[in-house]
Amino acid sequence: MRIGILGSGLMGAKLGTIFARVGHHVVFSYSHDQRKLDRLAQSAGHGARSGTPAEAAESADALLLAVHWSRVSDVLEKAGDVSGKVIVSCSLPMNADDTTLVVAHTSSGSETLAKKVPKARVVSAFSTVPSEVLFTVFSGRRSRKRPSLVYCGDDAGAKKTAARLIRDVGFEPVDAGPLRIARYTEPFTLLMAQLAYEGTRGPALAYRLEWRRERKA
Amino acid sequence: MRIGILGSGLMGAKLGTIFARVGHHVVFSYSHDQRKLDRLAQSAGHGARSGTPAEAAESADALLLAVHWSRVSDVLEKAGDVSGKVIVSCSLPMNADDTTLVVAHTSSGSETLAKKVPKARVVSAFSTVPSEVLFTVFSGRRSRKRPSLVYCGDDAGAKKTAARLIRDVGFEPVDAGPLRIARYTEPFTLLMAQLAYEGTRGPALAYRLEWRRERKA
Repeated sequence: MRIGILGSGLMGAKLGTIFARVGHHVVFSYSHDQRKLDRLAQSAGHGARSGTPAEAAESADALLLAVHWSRVSDVLEKAGDVSGKVIVSCSLPMNADDTTLVVAHTSSGSETLAKKVPKARVVSAFSTVPSEVLFTVFSGRRSRKRPSLVYCGDDAGAKKTAARLIRDVGFEPVDAGPLRIARYTEPFTLLMAQLAYEGTRGPALAYRLEWRRERKA
Repeated sequence: MRIGILGSGLMGAKLGTIFARVGHHVVFSYSHDQRKLDRLAQSAGHGARSGTPAEAAESADALLLAVHWSRVSDVLEKAGDVSGKVIVSCSLPMNADDTTLVVAHTSSGSETLAKKVPKARVVSAFSTVPSEVLFTVFSGRRSRKRPSLVYCGDDAGAKKTAARLIRDVGFEPVDAGPLRIARYTEPFTLLMAQLAYEGTRGPALAYRLEWRRERKA
């Protein structure tokens, strides 16, 4: 697939690198520092390129939205027309200090995003694990017990695309339902962040959802 | 320990039964139907009793609060003075239809509860898994890879009590920090409920938090 990365922070850089390594055509975009994008593309290898958000979006099969919430409108404007595009978003609706969600539990950042780009096909994914665990999971992607990654969205085709990318990184995709479930996955992300960054066991944290056989007593 | 169960729904009934089986002194309370409480106590065995909320609270080392949010004030009033008591709460702040949280992400049900009973020592725990998985986890409690259960609270001693109870049920307790983290664990509960009840793989769902070694690339 052709994948445009919007945002060159930890999530965008690492996921873009992984997507390139498994054979996708990746364009890194959206940094104040053009050299940073060039370095990212070079370090990712496998034909990854740097470009403008418009170049990243052009003919992309999927766009990864990985910018701070305060930059969403700006990056979308620079990306141009995203009608019909699959947008996989890991942008959380955080305030400027990154201390709290700015969208209440009666809505979610992903739903707000979907309203901004009503012709795009938004899937919420990848935010529920810290970036520190991505390469670890990727390196263990052939193992039998993969960690889970929840995703949600309202477009079945876009969700298939997202699930493939999730599997590419080494996670087992878990369909959590429609996009409004981002109201729960976004606070779950903050729980994961609390455990990863405020705990004593380090930031490389993943989770596994385990369905068991029910016992009655 | 002496454990008072406030609420005789699925969580209260199952956790009370498990607590009795591992040797705690359990009092079941708070049902419209006294015979239901009696049956619960009898079926749990191991000396479990039924009683009023005041009897459940009296000389209890820990109280499990497992009532619908709309009943919290009522059950607390009936329980009497809870100064100094450890309250382990799995009551979520849901509306009457159980369709949404009624406390926004700028607070949480557990924090609201702690304000109601400022002299009690509230820990938020047990709500993040569906009741259907409890006996399954309990029956596998000797296994090496236990599922996780997050808990949070502001009182270190009360958290120790909660962690012991969590371990008794067969989970690995994971300290998620202060009580305000319930703002994240409560929506996480709704995510778990969505996956358990709206998915195709059944309701006996648990989760395992896995700390890995970080890889840089």
